[in-house]
Amino acid sequence: MTQYKVTFHPHEKQIRVDENTRLIRAAMECGVHINASCGGEGVCGKCRVIIESGEVAEGVSEQLSAEDQEKGYRLACLAEVKSDVTVRVPMESSIDARVLNLQATARKTARIKDLNLDDLKEKGLFVPPVEKIYIELPLPTDADNVADMTRLVDFLRKKHDEHRLEFDLSVIRKVPDVLRQEDFKVTVTIARPVREDGKNRIINIEPGDTSDRNYALAVDIGTTTVYGEIIDLKAGRVLAQYGDFNSQISYGEDVISRIVYSEKKDGLETLNELVMSTINTVVGKLLKKSKIEPDEVSNITFAGNTTMTQLFLKIKCHNLRRSPYVPASLIYPPFKPSEIGLALGDHVTVLVYPQVSSYVGGDIVSGIMGSGMYNDEELTLYIDIGTNAEVVIGNKDWMVCAACSAGPAFEGGGIKLGMRATEGAIEDFSIDPVTLEPMNVTIGNVRPKGICGSGLIIIVATLFEMGIVDNRGKFNRDLDTDRIREKDDVYEYVLAWADVSGTDRDIVLNEIDIDNLMRAKGAIYSGCMTLLAEVGLSIGDISRIILAGGFGSYVDLEKAMTIGLLPEIDAEKVIFVGNGSLMGARMSSLTNRIRRDVTQTIKRITNFELSETQSFMDNYIAALFLPHTDLNLFPKLKSRMDKRRKDMDNLSRG
Amino acid sequence: MTQYKVTFHPHEKQIRVDENTRLIRAAMECGVHINASCGGEGVCGKCRVIIESGEVAEGVSEQLSAEDQEKGYRLACLAEVKSDVTVRVPMESSIDARVLNLQATARKTARIKDLNLDDLKEKGLFVPPVEKIYIELPLPTDADNVADMTRLVDFLRKKHDEHRLEFDLSVIRKVPDVLRQEDFKVTVTIARPVREDGKNRIINIEPGDTSDRNYALAVDIGTTTVYGEIIDLKAGRVLAQYGDFNSQISYGEDVISRIVYSEKKDGLETLNELVMSTINTVVGKLLKKSKIEPDEVSNITFAGNTTMTQLFLKIKCHNLRRSPYVPASLIYPPFKPSEIGLALGDHVTVLVYPQVSSYVGGDIVSGIMGSGMYNDEELTLYIDIGTNAEVVIGNKDWMVCAACSAGPAFEGGGIKLGMRATEGAIEDFSIDPVTLEPMNVTIGNVRPKGICGSGLIIIVATLFEMGIVDNRGKFNRDLDTDRIREKDDVYEYVLAWADVSGTDRDIVLNEIDIDNLMRAKGAIYSGCMTLLAEVGLSIGDISRIILAGGFGSYVDLEKAMTIGLLPEIDAEKVIFVGNGSLMGARMSSLTNRIRRDVTQTIKRITNFELSETQSFMDNYIAALFLPHTDLNLFPKLKSRMDKRRKDMDNLSRG
Repeated sequence: MTQYKVTFHPHEKQIRVDENTRLIRAAMECGVHINASCGGEGVCGKCRVIIESGEVAEGVSEQLSAEDQEKGYRLACLAEVKSDVTVRVPMESSIDARVLNLQATARKTARIKDLNLDDLKEKGLFVPPVEKIYIELPLPTDADNVADMTRLVDFLRKKHDEHRLEFDLSVIRKVPDVLRQEDFKVTVTIARPVREDGKNRIINIEPGDTSDRNYALAVDIGTTTVYGEIIDLKAGRVLAQYGDFNSQISYGEDVISRIVYSEKKDGLETLNELVMSTINTVVGKLLKKSKIEPDEVSNITFAGNTTMTQLFLKIKCHNLRRSPYVPASLIYPPFKPSEIGLALGDHVTVLVYPQVSSYVGGDIVSGIMGSGMYNDEELTLYIDIGTNAEVVIGNKDWMVCAACSAGPAFEGGGIKLGMRATEGAIEDFSIDPVTLEPMNVTIGNVRPKGICGSGLIIIVATLFEMGIVDNRGKFNRDLDTDRIREKDDVYEYVLAWADVSGTDRDIVLNEIDIDNLMRAKGAIYSGCMTLLAEVGLSIGDISRIILAGGFGSYVDLEKAMTIGLLPEIDAEKVIFVGNGSLMGARMSSLTNRIRRDVTQTIKRITNFELSETQSFMDNYIAALFLPHTDLNLFPKLKSRMDKRRKDMDNLSRG
Repeated sequence: MTQYKVTFHPHEKQIRVDENTRLIRAAMECGVHINASCGGEGVCGKCRVIIESGEVAEGVSEQLSAEDQEKGYRLACLAEVKSDVTVRVPMESSIDARVLNLQATARKTARIKDLNLDDLKEKGLFVPPVEKIYIELPLPTDADNVADMTRLVDFLRKKHDEHRLEFDLSVIRKVPDVLRQEDFKVTVTIARPVREDGKNRIINIEPGDTSDRNYALAVDIGTTTVYGEIIDLKAGRVLAQYGDFNSQISYGEDVISRIVYSEKKDGLETLNELVMSTINTVVGKLLKKSKIEPDEVSNITFAGNTTMTQLFLKIKCHNLRRSPYVPASLIYPPFKPSEIGLALGDHVTVLVYPQVSSYVGGDIVSGIMGSGMYNDEELTLYIDIGTNAEVVIGNKDWMVCAACSAGPAFEGGGIKLGMRATEGAIEDFSIDPVTLEPMNVTIGNVRPKGICGSGLIIIVATLFEMGIVDNRGKFNRDLDTDRIREKDDVYEYVLAWADVSGTDRDIVLNEIDIDNLMRAKGAIYSGCMTLLAEVGLSIGDISRIILAGGFGSYVDLEKAMTIGLLPEIDAEKVIFVGNGSLMGARMSSLTNRIRRDVTQTIKRITNFELSETQSFMDNYIAALFLPHTDLNLFPKLKSRMDKRRKDMDNLSRG
């Protein structure tokens, strides 16, 4: 995609962005604050900027007079970059100009590169679990009246060098009609074995040539959300994604309350039916969206935490919440859709990611496998933040893991106006340290409805670094602004007033939210530190952090370190993979090697129960601050804060 | 069992029989004719004999006066042998005494020995497809909280040297509760692989020690009847047998009419449901009879002809009756009961015998495997006579086979009063050549209701050899007896008058019946001859005949040769195996070797389509006589008939 340079004055900051990027995102990206509270819908009209040179599209609304438009004013939240552009952010006061450098910092994000089939092919790893082959069979005669399946198998053996073939009963049921539908021209779907000496299994047969329509599904069964993807196995790319709330949610937000419910009479059956109905909805939507028939899907891979996996497979969960926390099984055999009530044909092979323990499940194993961590020399810290959080440390030779009772703050749980990373969620933010005016950027550029995980990290980190919130998570009571107020005995900051919000209510963040965030990030940080200590390592030994979770499209790494969620480490050592569980399920559809390697891999992972580790509680209590009781653990933040304090002192003295 | 000697006067014939054998059967066995038309229920009172020495039990009825009883008279049909016995058959006329040696001939039957576990063990062939192992697992602790399945598999590996273990989803579903029901003391069912390097599959887990309750089912799906057996895999013996009419029978008596019906709308579904309901009934009765729970069955093996197998598996049969007669598949994968609607738990593995062609099916393959023919040096002629007949010739190196359109005469089809070999069927017969009085022996010793296959052979052979029926199957019109009469333009012989029959009607055999029998036996005989000729052999090259079919408990071999059903061969070379299909299914439950060998075996069998073989029709027409147009093919019969003719001539001259 074409990129253009955007220069912001008077900040003198530059950034290269893709064509059509909105100016407000370009500003956020390089650390330029522009007041903007309506999320980017052009409603509040505060984000006026002057285009000094270059071309932008859009950027006008009734908030801008014709006269202003003439002068080059545009709304930064609406204007799209169409060439190299020079933009001036108008300063409303001399104060504004002097605090330019105290405002936002440039985003430091990391993402792994997208699915790359060529890369997989190059490494010899493109070994999809199912393959389609088009064949034209000789017609039967009196002299050659072998059985239909014999004709098929013999031909594949002789003409396509396919050996060790076996087949399902469902294929035998189809074969007489399918062969004769288009004169013995058919496409055969073959499921490949995990090991090269295994059996090749004919799982489907279709009339004519359908070899270019070969699809797989990947599904992450989250406690809160079920995400699915449909993958084109011929092209090696994702065709569609779809997510929906796990219908079990009405029986409890976390795994413990689900387990408790499952123990009631018919509880397991109820929860099983609910999650299956969500899964069938997600699968149905994906098929519809991508115009694919159920019969064209050859493979489906699931990944989920241990509780979600057992509920989905209708396996009792009693023992998962009772010491000594014993899951029913770590691995699951491949099986057919009808065995679990999945609305796909029985030619489909269902694969389910294995577990490590009752609280480190298939979602984590999926992330470890899909990210390649299991096969890598580099010593990696893998952190998955979902409705709970899990941490894995290790490399291809060994791994240790632990579950942290972090709770669902990063998914919006326990946060008054928290929400998932969907349209209307504030996902980015900065603040003018003098006027305390916000710059809210929402997913979908619509009026803000709430705060998603990545937004929450950025908001709290920014408020803390600006001195608006202290290290105990309390608002500075002395600031002169109506955006900070006490309501029902709780202090809160108003991100967007009701008149520009998407909910007709003020969008706020309060001290209880911050407290919950601190507990969550404290549990994760102390989990990492405790696990490192258990294996005699420190954060300096880690070459790489892989961060997985449903925060939104990106996580600002510096901000994540500012609140003490992540230990301080070079940003380039951090990779954000988004939904790690889904990623692994997707990778399993593209390369059978993962299925081959995963059973060995889970044997190499040692599980730690943090609650039984002496030092964990000490680490946890020390981490219940922003960023931590010991600021020396965050030297870069410390030096930034020292500098800022001096700048602010100078400013107030100036 | 204790045996005793029975001596008959004035015949001077002796026979050893089991204790409690009824005298009428002992007489029949050694060729002593006693008038007896009521089948053995003591109603007609004709079978009076005098016990000259030794002890019998029972044998009295109201037909015998107290005075007669005092004199030692007993009814032969009721009297049971309790010691060595001397019996005198009263002669009503001097004629009677003179024709003693013209009466019945001793039975020449052959049976394979019963299932012998020791024999299988000795040969290293006792390798049941499923095994149960009782284990006592260590309890989980904080320090040892591995998953339930891991605990199980690790223990089996370490303590029982069980390797390459995999398991079903259904086992994972059971494991949490079952382990905790009796303190981690459980019995595990392991399905053994066909090949030694295959996987061992844990298919079931039960609380406590149930290792001595391990059962398998074997089922023969016949066109007319479904027979099942339940087998104790620990003891290696059959516990119960049960047979029921295939409910499909209301949609046609033979496979062609079933196929035709299956092509109608919902026809396949209807026939499938019908046979499954019969199978489920048979399975249910077997379980009930032997007081076994469905969960205690680990394995079920089915054998049936190609049409029955395809209908049972819900596979379209269109092509089976259309040139070039292509079946859907020769082999079937193992699958779970739910895939076919079988009322057993999904821990059960369902095995189905493979086919050779559209008209030589799994029932024949089952017989070849179960009888050991497939693995034997001896050149064998295998004949299976059911609703149709199939012939196989060969040994362990090669085999040829053909289906003969024999029709169901030997199962009672096309015979006016034909019936299956169940209670009330006349299964044995002799006749007084002068008075033409019959000696009927029925299954269950009850009043006769009809004629089963073995009875039909004996009756027709006897009537023919006595000159009562000629070689075209026509009754001698000159005989002076009311037992031979013309009714509705058809000649018939009255086996039992209505007053002693079990149906309140005369039990008869007519010329149409004989004609149908000749067509059936002609098709089989000519099939054998044609097949032998195709491979350049003659009957003299055959070392052994294996005869399978549902005739009854035995077939009189001499009589079968007399009517020309079997070629003349030494009786000791003939083995009668009863239901060959069921036998093979039973053997598959006791030794996994059969499953290993069967796929290779069917590849060694060459199928001939008799209808496309030039000489078949000539052979068939020549065989439509008793026994054949060319009596020289039956030299022993010829010499017997010559001798008998001379005897009769002497008698009439005397």
